[in-house]
Amino acid sequence: MTTQSFNPRTGKAFGPEIADTSASQVELIIDKAVAAFEKWSAATALQRAEALMGIADALDANSTSLVEIADLETGLGLPRLTGEIGRTTFQLREFARTLIDGRFIKSEVDAFADAPLPAGHPELIRSLSPLGVVVVFGANNFPFAFSVLGGDTASALAAGCAVIAKAHPSHPQTSNQVFAFAQQVLAAQGFSDALTLIHGVEAGVTVLNSPKVSAGAFTGSRRGGRALFDIAQSRETPIPFYGELGSVNPVIILNSAITDASALASAYLDSLLLGNGQFCTNPSILLVPAKSPMLTEIERQILERKPTPFLSPGTKSAHDSNRLELAKLLGSAVVHGQEINDGGLYSAPAILVTNVASVLAQPRALEIECFGPTGLVITYENVSELLKIIANLEGALTGSVFSATTDPDAVTLCSALARKVGRLSWNSWPTGVAVTIGQHHGGPYPASTSPIHTSVGLHAIVRFLRPVSYQNFPAEIAAKL
Amino acid sequence: MTTQSFNPRTGKAFGPEIADTSASQVELIIDKAVAAFEKWSAATALQRAEALMGIADALDANSTSLVEIADLETGLGLPRLTGEIGRTTFQLREFARTLIDGRFIKSEVDAFADAPLPAGHPELIRSLSPLGVVVVFGANNFPFAFSVLGGDTASALAAGCAVIAKAHPSHPQTSNQVFAFAQQVLAAQGFSDALTLIHGVEAGVTVLNSPKVSAGAFTGSRRGGRALFDIAQSRETPIPFYGELGSVNPVIILNSAITDASALASAYLDSLLLGNGQFCTNPSILLVPAKSPMLTEIERQILERKPTPFLSPGTKSAHDSNRLELAKLLGSAVVHGQEINDGGLYSAPAILVTNVASVLAQPRALEIECFGPTGLVITYENVSELLKIIANLEGALTGSVFSATTDPDAVTLCSALARKVGRLSWNSWPTGVAVTIGQHHGGPYPASTSPIHTSVGLHAIVRFLRPVSYQNFPAEIAAKL
Repeated sequence: MTTQSFNPRTGKAFGPEIADTSASQVELIIDKAVAAFEKWSAATALQRAEALMGIADALDANSTSLVEIADLETGLGLPRLTGEIGRTTFQLREFARTLIDGRFIKSEVDAFADAPLPAGHPELIRSLSPLGVVVVFGANNFPFAFSVLGGDTASALAAGCAVIAKAHPSHPQTSNQVFAFAQQVLAAQGFSDALTLIHGVEAGVTVLNSPKVSAGAFTGSRRGGRALFDIAQSRETPIPFYGELGSVNPVIILNSAITDASALASAYLDSLLLGNGQFCTNPSILLVPAKSPMLTEIERQILERKPTPFLSPGTKSAHDSNRLELAKLLGSAVVHGQEINDGGLYSAPAILVTNVASVLAQPRALEIECFGPTGLVITYENVSELLKIIANLEGALTGSVFSATTDPDAVTLCSALARKVGRLSWNSWPTGVAVTIGQHHGGPYPASTSPIHTSVGLHAIVRFLRPVSYQNFPAEIAAKL
Repeated sequence: MTTQSFNPRTGKAFGPEIADTSASQVELIIDKAVAAFEKWSAATALQRAEALMGIADALDANSTSLVEIADLETGLGLPRLTGEIGRTTFQLREFARTLIDGRFIKSEVDAFADAPLPAGHPELIRSLSPLGVVVVFGANNFPFAFSVLGGDTASALAAGCAVIAKAHPSHPQTSNQVFAFAQQVLAAQGFSDALTLIHGVEAGVTVLNSPKVSAGAFTGSRRGGRALFDIAQSRETPIPFYGELGSVNPVIILNSAITDASALASAYLDSLLLGNGQFCTNPSILLVPAKSPMLTEIERQILERKPTPFLSPGTKSAHDSNRLELAKLLGSAVVHGQEINDGGLYSAPAILVTNVASVLAQPRALEIECFGPTGLVITYENVSELLKIIANLEGALTGSVFSATTDPDAVTLCSALARKVGRLSWNSWPTGVAVTIGQHHGGPYPASTSPIHTSVGLHAIVRFLRPVSYQNFPAEIAAKL
């Protein structure tokens, strides 16, 4: 099998055919990664930080050409992609800084306690070791920030793991170029193959099944992610698999928040249609008061919205069929925006309008994520209806409540929604995920396969660190371990 | 189905037949646990700490009668069981203290950063919520410390989760009594059903499969644990499952450590035969220098060792058939200690002596855990042989190296063994696991199904806490959430 780049704006393939990594190449790469792990895991935190900084510098220095090829492959546009490179290199540098400050990697010394049992105990030094070789599956929608050198790779490398990155087929050239820059830096610093790259589904599955591989990370579709999760868990030796699989990111608008219906509707559509709606934090479900001026505004403004290209033919067809299924399931009105019919990968942006009763009659509607420029708008009559919808929601990455601070219903709704999400926002839209210590980008399944962990922000590193307690060691030996 | 207590010393059943929890009772208990979770998770840390302290007090106050029934059901003896109650209540109080000091549960405030992207971000308060209702499968070998109110239950309750405990069939009356004391305390403090109890395999599986249950924890056999892990992971909504499945706990004796062969051999046999060898940290595999005086001493001293009872008929028959299989696989000499043939559940303590070449020819031997009074003693010629054995080991809870501090091989061996274990001990035997902050009781599979988490010590609480980031919340709302 081969992969070729595809220009979403023209609907045409371009560039070289990039061959899938063959079975024998995969075995070679796994062995290289295992050997590289020996050196990389033994490097000091400062050495690892320097390598991550070096990679960030290389990406920044080459951002113009990287953004150019990524734009051709993804259609995401230069401003967004330039911002995304900035986010990617910021992320690499933040992990470098956290290695230097030591917060997530430092050992904890639990001194000898000279007391009778159960309180007495020998000295225990709880130290943190990298898990081993990690396979990271690149995401479709973030060619930089969640791909070859995205958050999963950055956190795994920071932890001291060697990473085998599986390129996403919708941006193979971007993946190759990003990888080449990183490889150069790592080789120059003596850590060749701490990061390696593979292409092709079969290659990815082979790596995930390898007894030499200790963990996996993934951002992408629910179906693909679940299939990989199942592989990782049904191995003879199961391994941690951190998958971020999909999320409808419910947003609740309370009447008390609607002071400027037009501005609020506009902000909603901006968030919904950002990057053609292809964000994992896209507000797929909006709950608005019945007969509210905001709904009228949304229905009016959507008509003016223009389409932007899909990432790939597969993304478009999945979106289109999900939208069709959702409309059929709910029997709901579809209000379309403008269309482009020039051979590119476009669908008119749209909202589907329905009410709580219809949704509760078809609760599966709450599980259909129209990944793309489609929003499900549910009108509600009262708080009790909202609580019923919340009770029927699956886990989500984020939820938002828009409300006046004085609204008597705000706390009840926030408390209920917090049970279902990894991040709860007040009067702010879900898109835009800060890479910072306070971030939690995860949530109950299917938002994440591991609800206690985050894939964005500095806590992401703990996913790849395994504690080892050293009991009763003399200082001169402990110092050499 | 019913369960009846069984006296390992007489080989006879006794006491009431305790019925398995029926399907309809299970549904009721799950609903009670869900309701109790609402109150328990909303309790303050201080309230939860007081409840845990109250339970600990109740167990201490009733330890005489608890130890009596546990001894009849397990044959573990009064001194050991009295110590185990002390450990159990210490553990409950330690989790109470950690709730009060707040280390593992406190929110992290990440202040608004007024800067351009990607560094700028809204305020994010990363707060920790309990996962939900947790099912804890009690262990055979610790009727107190790893059962109804053992480490898994204590850490899950501390986190604010409601716990459904599944009693182990080998000590049903102990389980019922422990539960009754805890239930009284919880009810008196207004938290009825924060802990509930079920009996029977089917009931346990039903709970683990319930969409209303958010996590599972288990300590026990590899086969049983893997079956439950598979159930938890193949649910429509997979849930975290923290299983501790088995471990051979390799111990390496270097020549430089053998200053008193007789004392060292005696200490080894004490550790091996403690609690009839029924510890998850039992040193199942010992590596000694070929022709060493320690081996001679072990072979001599084992002859004098007396059997102690098995926990249950199943434990004995599994042990006996594993010992037979191991001896056959390796063609190795079995040196037996003394026997008791009076109808009780006894097998003569024994060691199987072999060498590295034989083991490398049959590496599966390294995976057979003879849970009981049997040790595999492997003689080695040199460090290179030791490294080959280490390379073939599966994950283990602990490993030990006995050596002089000046031994040039110590560091190499410790580094290699650290890759395979959760705790590495220097000149100390693996049995005896301190409940403290520096403890890591886990390790690569099959020692644990989640190699980054511990089931003993205060870090165990993090397994049951899910982060939620609150973005952009006004203080007056945040204070009420």
